[in-house]
Amino acid sequence: MKLCIIGLGLLGGSFGLAVKAARSNTQVTGVENDLQHAQKALSLKLVDAVMPLEEAVTNADLVVLAVPVNAIAALLQPVLDLLPSGATLVDFGSTKEQICQIADKHPKRGQFVAAHPIAGTEYSGPEAAFESLLAQKTMIICDKEKSAPASLALVEQLCSELHMPLRYMAAADHDLHLAYVSHLSHISSFALGLTVLDKEQDAKNIFDMAGSGFSSTVRLAKSSPQMWAPIFTQNRQNVSEALDSYITQLQQFKALIAAQDEEKSRALMAKANDIRRILG
Amino acid sequence: MKLCIIGLGLLGGSFGLAVKAARSNTQVTGVENDLQHAQKALSLKLVDAVMPLEEAVTNADLVVLAVPVNAIAALLQPVLDLLPSGATLVDFGSTKEQICQIADKHPKRGQFVAAHPIAGTEYSGPEAAFESLLAQKTMIICDKEKSAPASLALVEQLCSELHMPLRYMAAADHDLHLAYVSHLSHISSFALGLTVLDKEQDAKNIFDMAGSGFSSTVRLAKSSPQMWAPIFTQNRQNVSEALDSYITQLQQFKALIAAQDEEKSRALMAKANDIRRILG
Repeated sequence: MKLCIIGLGLLGGSFGLAVKAARSNTQVTGVENDLQHAQKALSLKLVDAVMPLEEAVTNADLVVLAVPVNAIAALLQPVLDLLPSGATLVDFGSTKEQICQIADKHPKRGQFVAAHPIAGTEYSGPEAAFESLLAQKTMIICDKEKSAPASLALVEQLCSELHMPLRYMAAADHDLHLAYVSHLSHISSFALGLTVLDKEQDAKNIFDMAGSGFSSTVRLAKSSPQMWAPIFTQNRQNVSEALDSYITQLQQFKALIAAQDEEKSRALMAKANDIRRILG
Repeated sequence: MKLCIIGLGLLGGSFGLAVKAARSNTQVTGVENDLQHAQKALSLKLVDAVMPLEEAVTNADLVVLAVPVNAIAALLQPVLDLLPSGATLVDFGSTKEQICQIADKHPKRGQFVAAHPIAGTEYSGPEAAFESLLAQKTMIICDKEKSAPASLALVEQLCSELHMPLRYMAAADHDLHLAYVSHLSHISSFALGLTVLDKEQDAKNIFDMAGSGFSSTVRLAKSSPQMWAPIFTQNRQNVSEALDSYITQLQQFKALIAAQDEEKSRALMAKANDIRRILG
């Protein structure tokens, strides 16, 4: 198989490593605007070669868009234009509705599979990539009825080889759920980081006095602004709704704490404890 | 040494294990209202014996208050009343100002050391205790000038044997810092858990679609309501200030996302990325 990965960051690079491990006869070419990232990806053997986009796409059996979602939205039409008949394009964007709307207008819609691997870390770039990032992580495939059976089957088969359980849903449902279980977490963490950095001018105070709980809740504040700004833009309506609910919950806690109403405050926390059932 | 630990939960139990490991000739007695916790603590050998409070305190060289902060506030005076001359009382509460104010009124104030080990997990109870919980964790000692040199030295010596770095500060400063680097994290996590549980009736959606980022930010929502409600009450002014700042940051993100102002949103996130300097 000839695999072309556009975007050699954490996700694209990890996918390249994983596919090369699963299918040793795969030739992986990368497309990467950032020259330093391209060289790093080559030296880390995330890909076998780096090529210009047109050359890489026109020679591929499978093309993966693993760039920020604004770049996916911008590249989707030109890459589909270049895509050889019989080849498949899959994207790995964290938002799906706007991307699917763009794909829906293209005559080669059937060759496109809209996917979102629920995998990532707070780090980014080719040096953050590792072969096992995707293993055992859910791959969500959206609007699968719009993909041609052969293209869908190729992506499903690869997911199986990479030990990624599959889930299917409509693009609009995906974006709504992700606003709550992912995008909101990132904003809560960025905001927490800013709040503490604004207050604590002396970094030593944070380091010495913060327990592992703070590190855990603020970990995502290390995430890439270039990746996340366009996710929030594309999913702004759902994110706004999720943020409203979250702020309302915080204001409820604030009012109960101010009123020293420990009974109601304990009841709210006990309800939140229910997350144990899900996270274990 | 005769050590008495009042409260055989995560912190008290772990302290018992660590001291027994560091000083094999220590006799550790526990005081515990919850009969099941008491039996569990004995069977896990967190303590050598369980006794009624009066008997345990009057026979101890060192008494540790490792109960929720409302119980510390309630027990401080009666335990100091019982404390033999030459013995030391230390508390492990997550708030210090109100507790120190109570101690300040007692004639045996010098025998009291106000301390806060920056250690814990999202679990509670004797079965959550483990010997290494406190190792390498900061112990904050507050208002040390109010403790008698011998009592302070005993606590410092034990911290050294348990490999706990020491920091000293005023009780009021402690509570202000902790509101930002700990108490706020817990509220943000409880509120995040509630927001997602309210929206996602189908737990499978959360489990499948949430990445490790969500687990990380929501981990503290598993924490004990009985422990946290009184912490928020005692530190309500600082917590309220911290929550206001946090909500303001969230509203700022919400406005920028609604306005699709990616430049300013990226700038905010880049500022939050500064947390890398501190957390590594």
